[in-house]
Amino acid sequence: ISMSHVSPITHAPFMAEAIAEARAGLAEGGIPIGCVLVRNNQVIARGHNRRIQRNSVILHAEMDCLESGGRQTAAFYKECTLYTTLSPCAMCSGAIRLYGIPRVVIGDNKTFHGDEAILKTNHVQIDVLDSKACQELLGNYIKENHSIWYEDIGRDTH
Amino acid sequence: ISMSHVSPITHAPFMAEAIAEARAGLAEGGIPIGCVLVRNNQVIARGHNRRIQRNSVILHAEMDCLESGGRQTAAFYKECTLYTTLSPCAMCSGAIRLYGIPRVVIGDNKTFHGDEAILKTNHVQIDVLDSKACQELLGNYIKENHSIWYEDIGRDTH
Ligand SMILES: [Ca+2]
Ligand SMILES: [Ca+2]
Ligand SMILES: [Zn+2]
Ligand SMILES: [Zn+2]
Repeated sequence: ISMSHVSPITHAPFMAEAIAEARAGLAEGGIPIGCVLVRNNQVIARGHNRRIQRNSVILHAEMDCLESGGRQTAAFYKECTLYTTLSPCAMCSGAIRLYGIPRVVIGDNKTFHGDEAILKTNHVQIDVLDSKACQELLGNYIKENHSIWYEDIGRDTH
Repeated sequence: ISMSHVSPITHAPFMAEAIAEARAGLAEGGIPIGCVLVRNNQVIARGHNRRIQRNSVILHAEMDCLESGGRQTAAFYKECTLYTTLSPCAMCSGAIRLYGIPRVVIGDNKTFHGDEAILKTNHVQIDVLDSKACQELLGNYIKENHSIWYEDIGRDTH
């Protein structure tokens, strides 16, 4: 087994860090989606959705996290696992593929189901935790912020 | 024919604007890839690769352009055409799909061939201009900046 692959039992604390990022985003008035990048069993980058905070169309949680991780080599990314509270959309899945991140752990893919099929086709390992905490956090936000949510996933509300 | 679809004869001036963005990036010491977003026959956003300038792993030309265009509705993006000097990578193609941009005009897809197949599968219209100006601009840069180029496309140089 590759060193880049953490065992399932270690998922919980890293997903807790991603959820903490989502909560930090919510506290700023943002969409509560969070992400951390893990290498050698350590969080080396973190981020959360900043659409509202920065009026950004590209700072989804995963993008914010990758950006905060700085410029890295392909060899570096190959040893990383990305933890995200929500199934990654087409943009974020594309970034995962661009940089060759081999493994993605997803908190919730029921509220939104992203590009998991394309990731799998491209040999990215996907684990879905089915986290109630992730579902509730974003679910409650969406109930109160319908149009912002649809904007974030590139859809019209009607 | 939809209003969002410009006729082929109008491609040249918009690609010239994308090339001007690429040259602006080069003048800043950056990777010369440029992009403009066009709606109703007008450039409404522009951008260029800012990996070097901002130490960014997400500001490819297309992402920089989308970000500069601000927060828009799905209905807005449906009326846009994206002009880019280089075939869009997985990340940028994912952003195009996320926001439902229906048409992409590409200057050069020989230096780098991105996610055009996935775009086509998702009903994005692709036009490739096979621009020598785009090929030369980036080709000359890559000759002198091999490792930066490979970093930008998520690959190791060896
Ligand atoms: Ca997001
Ligand atoms: Ca680029
Ligand atoms: Zn995303
Ligand atoms: Zn790109």
